[in-house]
Amino acid sequence: MTDLLLRDARVWGHETLTDLLIRDGVVAATGQDLSADGAHVEGLGGKLLLPGFVDAHAHVDKTMWGGPWVPHDAGPGLMGKIRNGVERRDEIGLPSVNYITALLQQMIVSGTTHVRSHVDVDTTMGLAAVDAVREAVARLDGRISMEMVAFPQAGLLISPGTAELMDKALAGGVELVGGIDPAGLEHDPVRHLDTVFGLAEKHGAGVDIHLHDGGPLGVWQYDLIIDRALALGLQGKVTISHGYALGEVPVAEQDRVIARLAEAGIGLATVAPASAAPLPLVRLREAGVPVGAGNDGVRDLWSPYGNGDMLERALFLAQRSRFVRDEEIEIALEAATYGGARLSGRRAGFAVGDPGDFVAVDVRTPAEAVCVRPVRSLVVKGGRVVAREGRLV
Amino acid sequence: MTDLLLRDARVWGHETLTDLLIRDGVVAATGQDLSADGAHVEGLGGKLLLPGFVDAHAHVDKTMWGGPWVPHDAGPGLMGKIRNGVERRDEIGLPSVNYITALLQQMIVSGTTHVRSHVDVDTTMGLAAVDAVREAVARLDGRISMEMVAFPQAGLLISPGTAELMDKALAGGVELVGGIDPAGLEHDPVRHLDTVFGLAEKHGAGVDIHLHDGGPLGVWQYDLIIDRALALGLQGKVTISHGYALGEVPVAEQDRVIARLAEAGIGLATVAPASAAPLPLVRLREAGVPVGAGNDGVRDLWSPYGNGDMLERALFLAQRSRFVRDEEIEIALEAATYGGARLSGRRAGFAVGDPGDFVAVDVRTPAEAVCVRPVRSLVVKGGRVVAREGRLV
Repeated sequence: MTDLLLRDARVWGHETLTDLLIRDGVVAATGQDLSADGAHVEGLGGKLLLPGFVDAHAHVDKTMWGGPWVPHDAGPGLMGKIRNGVERRDEIGLPSVNYITALLQQMIVSGTTHVRSHVDVDTTMGLAAVDAVREAVARLDGRISMEMVAFPQAGLLISPGTAELMDKALAGGVELVGGIDPAGLEHDPVRHLDTVFGLAEKHGAGVDIHLHDGGPLGVWQYDLIIDRALALGLQGKVTISHGYALGEVPVAEQDRVIARLAEAGIGLATVAPASAAPLPLVRLREAGVPVGAGNDGVRDLWSPYGNGDMLERALFLAQRSRFVRDEEIEIALEAATYGGARLSGRRAGFAVGDPGDFVAVDVRTPAEAVCVRPVRSLVVKGGRVVAREGRLV
Repeated sequence: MTDLLLRDARVWGHETLTDLLIRDGVVAATGQDLSADGAHVEGLGGKLLLPGFVDAHAHVDKTMWGGPWVPHDAGPGLMGKIRNGVERRDEIGLPSVNYITALLQQMIVSGTTHVRSHVDVDTTMGLAAVDAVREAVARLDGRISMEMVAFPQAGLLISPGTAELMDKALAGGVELVGGIDPAGLEHDPVRHLDTVFGLAEKHGAGVDIHLHDGGPLGVWQYDLIIDRALALGLQGKVTISHGYALGEVPVAEQDRVIARLAEAGIGLATVAPASAAPLPLVRLREAGVPVGAGNDGVRDLWSPYGNGDMLERALFLAQRSRFVRDEEIEIALEAATYGGARLSGRRAGFAVGDPGDFVAVDVRTPAEAVCVRPVRSLVVKGGRVVAREGRLV
């Protein structure tokens, strides 16, 4: 593969313009006036260069992106959405490799270079969604990387047979094991979590658990998850998704849990919902707890919203967190880049050895990038130009 | 002026495609296969046609749109923002006719055809901001219409001399008189409101009062405003802006106030902030209380956010209101169109006599327009094409 030389980049966090040479998918050299020797050269002319965006919480298997408009029609609550999703997906033809591919393309042109997607595994569909996501990713031929979470959307204990399917998915290479509201949905939190962590241990897989349960009930489950991560030595391999509860309890209780999260090496993924309590991002950051951001479902039977754009998600996260200063807004952008990468144990940045995953935008500061959400001038994945001016290359 | 014939529009609320003939700025005929006799014809090919967006709460005089990025640097609270705004505007060159013009252009290409802007009137600047907004609007030569609110941003009672300047602004043709937190900022709510309503009575002007004060304190001021609107017979001429308090008090108290708002013919304007309690839109609508939406300040010393796009504002309003069904999302879009028009006593719609202010977008339903926020295919102001495919004509 030809080397790529990014010339005159305004690298996030640095004042002077820099060149970056990307060889074999990773940064091989940085500095001024690097030699172009045989490399493909992209002159950035002072454009801002950011690490490729990481969508740390997606549900690409459910999307209807690129299809006709489907008015939202789910019953109330989590169970109403679960039932509606299962009942209507056949009629609409979900999971659809075409829709998933269309959404991934949209993500790529928006600057996303890596996605963690929860993928439904259930007893009526089996592993069809896993297969569909794999096929869509294959169609995009390396323009975006993907890790999957075997996700028991319809419940694990309440849907007998699901654990066996998740076991099969993990044996087949799915990277992480998922869980969902061990108390609120499953009504047996200890057995739910023991099953999830048992699968993780068996397969050496990571863990990513949906936790919508609020207040003290949610925080109590934080503790159950932390206990298991510590006992099994899974530091750096466990994520709690949503985890609204942490934003709902008193500050002293938040701080107790944050200290334990840091000790257990657990990270959080947030989709910055418009109405749930925001996570305490600043104190999580001070404690060293990684926080990633994700778009959640994009135009699916769960929600009519979303467009796959991580800069827009960073905007939502910043606004919900009442961030207004540049250094605050950058915390939201960190979640869309470095934070998501950390959850996945991936490197991100501008140093030699970091992956050649970058986005260039024609603005002057990272905060401006979040506020303006400009067309992505250039998207680079593994040292290859994959999108330019909002269009797939 | 040449007639304009919009051919094959998918008009909001109607299934079959329709033509609209616009003559002398207003809709002159609607129906299928209208004669084009000498008219300029725009074929919409089934694109969705919406009333021109109304930005019912803007602060265009403060904007730095089109200028260099200015990191946010205000002190805390309302007073911190007020002080920062006054202290830094000279250094940045505000109000700037160029920036205001740039923002209005951005609004036009985003489909906004009418704006209500609060314009600062204070003792250090006098009426300079009013003059600057007038000049910017004049530069745009009818592509957008504007009504101004003489706004005592730095306080009215606490800044002696401001009332006299507002009086002068109203005498010079400014359409509405503004007010701000009669209790929380001014500390003398009765005298503040008596001054504001006295100016309104003197000049036959409308009233639009910023009310950030929360909970019972805010609702108590709703009552003071309602009392005065009823006493002076100002039905249809009074707006409360923000008015977060209504979303914060118990439902029974909300309902009492909503009934009084309806009786007094008072409307509300909301900017759908990311963190304040949302207004109870559904019950306000059932009671017949008009609600308009606005972008608030766009990239100014008060906030780094905003882009002037009323479809994005409708999205924020829908998401903060937890709307997911098409008919719910349309309530948010109503606020960005019909609601804002009602606040200003303007007609809006597709009937003969309605203003020739329209936006066409290439989607199938109004809810889809809010969720997708597509490029505006065509923007028409008073029967004149003013923007096409996101560019000013």
